[in-house]
Amino acid sequence: MPFSPFSPTPASHLHRVSIVGGAGKVGSTLGQRIAEKNLADVVLLDVVDGLPKGIALDLMEARGIEAHNCLISGTTDYADTAGSDVVVITAGLARKPGMSRDDLIKTNARIVVEAAKNAIAYSPDAILIVVTNPLDVMTYLAKQATDLPRDRVMGMAGVLDSARFQTFIAMELGICSVDIQAMVLGGHGDLMVPLPAYSTIRGIPITELMDTATIERLIHRTRQGGAEIVELMQTGGAYFAPASSTCLMVEAILHNQSRLIPAAAYLQGEYGLQDVFIGVPCRLGRGGIESILELRLSEAERDALHTSAKSVRESIEQAIAMLKR
Amino acid sequence: MPFSPFSPTPASHLHRVSIVGGAGKVGSTLGQRIAEKNLADVVLLDVVDGLPKGIALDLMEARGIEAHNCLISGTTDYADTAGSDVVVITAGLARKPGMSRDDLIKTNARIVVEAAKNAIAYSPDAILIVVTNPLDVMTYLAKQATDLPRDRVMGMAGVLDSARFQTFIAMELGICSVDIQAMVLGGHGDLMVPLPAYSTIRGIPITELMDTATIERLIHRTRQGGAEIVELMQTGGAYFAPASSTCLMVEAILHNQSRLIPAAAYLQGEYGLQDVFIGVPCRLGRGGIESILELRLSEAERDALHTSAKSVRESIEQAIAMLKR
Amino acid sequence: MPFSPFSPTPASHLHRVSIVGGAGKVGSTLGQRIAEKNLADVVLLDVVDGLPKGIALDLMEARGIEAHNCLISGTTDYADTAGSDVVVITAGLARKPGMSRDDLIKTNARIVVEAAKNAIAYSPDAILIVVTNPLDVMTYLAKQATDLPRDRVMGMAGVLDSARFQTFIAMELGICSVDIQAMVLGGHGDLMVPLPAYSTIRGIPITELMDTATIERLIHRTRQGGAEIVELMQTGGAYFAPASSTCLMVEAILHNQSRLIPAAAYLQGEYGLQDVFIGVPCRLGRGGIESILELRLSEAERDALHTSAKSVRESIEQAIAMLKR
Amino acid sequence: MPFSPFSPTPASHLHRVSIVGGAGKVGSTLGQRIAEKNLADVVLLDVVDGLPKGIALDLMEARGIEAHNCLISGTTDYADTAGSDVVVITAGLARKPGMSRDDLIKTNARIVVEAAKNAIAYSPDAILIVVTNPLDVMTYLAKQATDLPRDRVMGMAGVLDSARFQTFIAMELGICSVDIQAMVLGGHGDLMVPLPAYSTIRGIPITELMDTATIERLIHRTRQGGAEIVELMQTGGAYFAPASSTCLMVEAILHNQSRLIPAAAYLQGEYGLQDVFIGVPCRLGRGGIESILELRLSEAERDALHTSAKSVRESIEQAIAMLKR
Repeated sequence: MPFSPFSPTPASHLHRVSIVGGAGKVGSTLGQRIAEKNLADVVLLDVVDGLPKGIALDLMEARGIEAHNCLISGTTDYADTAGSDVVVITAGLARKPGMSRDDLIKTNARIVVEAAKNAIAYSPDAILIVVTNPLDVMTYLAKQATDLPRDRVMGMAGVLDSARFQTFIAMELGICSVDIQAMVLGGHGDLMVPLPAYSTIRGIPITELMDTATIERLIHRTRQGGAEIVELMQTGGAYFAPASSTCLMVEAILHNQSRLIPAAAYLQGEYGLQDVFIGVPCRLGRGGIESILELRLSEAERDALHTSAKSVRESIEQAIAMLKR
Repeated sequence: MPFSPFSPTPASHLHRVSIVGGAGKVGSTLGQRIAEKNLADVVLLDVVDGLPKGIALDLMEARGIEAHNCLISGTTDYADTAGSDVVVITAGLARKPGMSRDDLIKTNARIVVEAAKNAIAYSPDAILIVVTNPLDVMTYLAKQATDLPRDRVMGMAGVLDSARFQTFIAMELGICSVDIQAMVLGGHGDLMVPLPAYSTIRGIPITELMDTATIERLIHRTRQGGAEIVELMQTGGAYFAPASSTCLMVEAILHNQSRLIPAAAYLQGEYGLQDVFIGVPCRLGRGGIESILELRLSEAERDALHTSAKSVRESIEQAIAMLKR
Repeated sequence: MPFSPFSPTPASHLHRVSIVGGAGKVGSTLGQRIAEKNLADVVLLDVVDGLPKGIALDLMEARGIEAHNCLISGTTDYADTAGSDVVVITAGLARKPGMSRDDLIKTNARIVVEAAKNAIAYSPDAILIVVTNPLDVMTYLAKQATDLPRDRVMGMAGVLDSARFQTFIAMELGICSVDIQAMVLGGHGDLMVPLPAYSTIRGIPITELMDTATIERLIHRTRQGGAEIVELMQTGGAYFAPASSTCLMVEAILHNQSRLIPAAAYLQGEYGLQDVFIGVPCRLGRGGIESILELRLSEAERDALHTSAKSVRESIEQAIAMLKR
Repeated sequence: MPFSPFSPTPASHLHRVSIVGGAGKVGSTLGQRIAEKNLADVVLLDVVDGLPKGIALDLMEARGIEAHNCLISGTTDYADTAGSDVVVITAGLARKPGMSRDDLIKTNARIVVEAAKNAIAYSPDAILIVVTNPLDVMTYLAKQATDLPRDRVMGMAGVLDSARFQTFIAMELGICSVDIQAMVLGGHGDLMVPLPAYSTIRGIPITELMDTATIERLIHRTRQGGAEIVELMQTGGAYFAPASSTCLMVEAILHNQSRLIPAAAYLQGEYGLQDVFIGVPCRLGRGGIESILELRLSEAERDALHTSAKSVRESIEQAIAMLKR
């Protein structure tokens, strides 16, 4: 038997992405997308024994059909995530009926802080993307817990909120989504700040193509985007579009794409804001958030951004206080 | 406002695929794959109100990022599936601890028969792919319920079983899955018939590259492929690889690819078998199963195929009897 | 020998695109792209015997590697293009040193008129895309020769000019091209009308990100885009980006994408212009040019568009006169 | 003007591939494929001034449409290729009417030796792929000129010859190319050794599906594959399929795919051959040729391989003698 040419050690991809919460819907769908776009080997980490391994094996069994060569593995041990280029945290509870907002923050805060610390201990050079809600608060806690420089910690929200706004514009006008660019800043929640003047169809602002009432309707739907899905699904929240949005950020980083996208970034004076994470337009590449673009905002837009930041700031303080208890 | 050029009616794709059971894991993941490969508009039909709509909206919100232009919609009403080119049935229970095999067959038989009848009533020209287990039995019932010609009804099993065998070979030898082709015939279950002599790496039979004990080990793992995932996941079964496998068949049909793949087909004398659905190599194209290839089998392989067919045949009779009660 | 399941007739794709001038660089590269994106079977038609067949065979021999299932064939006989969904005309001379502009128009006019007539005779329901230069003039002649309705005849120029402007913006700012949308209207030539106010990075007009001098420099380079390539190449002109641009239009049509792109369209009053082909924003789908969007232009932009249209109009009359001789 | 976030330095991909002969048809098409599959930044090097720059700019201008973020540049200076992960040599003359075989060898030998020396001087860690004909001879000279270890020098021929055999099988049987795997060993020329017993459709050897006369006809056509294209094209030879074949090798290396493919490798006793380059099945990954698989050949196949090797060996000696003159 001419075994010699073959090796039982599977070849690994040159990049590695670990997903904490990898057995959840967002985490596993993100793992699927990263692997099937051939971006990196994927480690799905979760607390439940077996489940991440089962999902990973299921994904591996689709490798030949989907024609990629990434390895997907499942684990409950952070040691298996060592050497990751990017770590994504999707772990945490979704808000359920009867659960108070405070309880949600408290529970997820503990989960995210622990996840960030453990993951970065094994991958000290990784870039960290937080997806757990409430997004801007959790990203702040992750930065604080790891003490990473601000270019290497970010939250995924703006890409998703913008994708929703883009979709609603596309459906309203009957134009292909790829010709539409939408910009949504601010915190990920009711106070997010969609910018219609910077939302365009092939460069044409939607303010020239729709009346104010229509735009307001689409903005309202965008703000309620997450809730609309929860209400329909009942048993959980969105995961396909969140996974796509996160994958776009992972790809921008791994392929050094210099993309300009909205992401939750740590501000140090930009937009007149300090020591808070909030959605702003960032250049994303191999170095993480390589720069923050300060858009010229109207008075009303700037006020809305500050209001959103204030609300995030309060939740951050609340979360920090809770964690100390 | 220059509204005129725009139309609120979204443009539809030239193909349409409906998935009965579209809110389940296999169904929704299949919907994602069909849309993201830009194959067809997708209708996710399921019995739960809201859930298929929520999944469809979530997938729609990823359209811009994934750069496709398929419409995904959710419904509980078969009328919305009218005019489908392909109908896939993934509806049905997965076997759960404590549930007898008979109970499973009975429940799923009723589900599949109703799904097939309703879907084909609205799409009389569709090609029907059954994914619900026990696969070969359910495909038989679907054919009987719809009276479709045999080229237009088939079951998805061989692609999945082959993909698993391919993966295990790839992991054993450390060679890229895309260079490996595996062939698994027979019923979808313990009695399936993997054919190592027709399983190759770049044309080289694995029998020249691995010893018998190794091959037997991989065959055993393939036969237990579904169970291995269930044991790991605990809460459910495989869905990523099943969805990929089904999507491959949908693509072969819609794009008229003339692919040669194993599928559960209705036999009328081929391989010495009659009036039974079982996995055999088929040419798949726009016409559905355009032909069945009769491989030269060894005595042992032929016996194994007949044993598998006999077992399927018995289950079919059992199911038919149950349905009459 | 179990021949029966196999058929020597290769399966054909459900769409067909014919390229007149298919052995030239733009034509053959376009054929490659259409096939490798799995959009349609491709017929490369050209006047030289053998060459289109050779290119087609070369492309066929890459099918397995590029994993598509389109048939590519070469011919000198228009009968082989029958039943095309889209016909693209790339045939014609490129302007060479010493050749007068009049000679170019005259030669290409005869080529395009004959090509359009012959192709549409065999594919009366096709949508016709003209790529031959001078673009707007040739598209006019093709419409006149075939008497096709205006939604089914168009010229490819705006996508290419916009792609060049997009590239120069991307290179200037170090931002990924996919985040940039550029809009260029008017005739395909020195008088084209790039619109910086409608050229954006993620929705942000470049006028907010670059000073006037920089923008003017990029506009100048865009206008000279074709000439810059000719000067570098010496032996010919651009073909990769023109083929990509044309392929985008073919895909928008075949997949009914409702894209909003600039294309040379026949105007009947839009923008105050009549009986002329010129680049304007169009919605492109299965029906061809489904609508024309009238942008709000500044006085200067509108004047520039009219100047460009006047120049095209003059060339059209000149060409018609020449053809009569 | 908020310039700060933007940088005029375009972001570079993490990999770099240089193509010597990058302005030729094979070279430029290879550059296109590498970039459009998002594999690496591409440097097109050629001797003609301007042409490589023009092609590179043309390809850059398609970046937004083709949605990749690789940089393509053109040059005549080897210094610009520094730090390449892979160097491909496509430079050299194609054989023209009236040119003797000796003249061809002599001219191309000088070109390839110089190209290999210069390129490796600037990229000492690169993996070198030779495409220039006569392939096996040129690969030998490139190894000798650079003194690279044998895992880092290889010739592209087997993938192309196999792709042609695959295509002819697909066309004969009317089955999709992706289900067909073909294996062709030996030198790239009339003496190549197609192996029908190792050429399969979904694992089924073609010897079970076609009679001997048919197989012989397809083998003959494969051997004449290059000549058939030249005869049709008259003005040159194949470039689309050769570029695809080379790109497959580049991807296997950059993505560490552990693919099993036929490539011209330097033999040191394998198959009973010594100090010669000839096509054999290799495992290709980040380390280049990671291992050579010794297939079990029939007496006749082994004889054919030795005959082919002997012919290559003679040409190598002839070329070395010529170079000394």
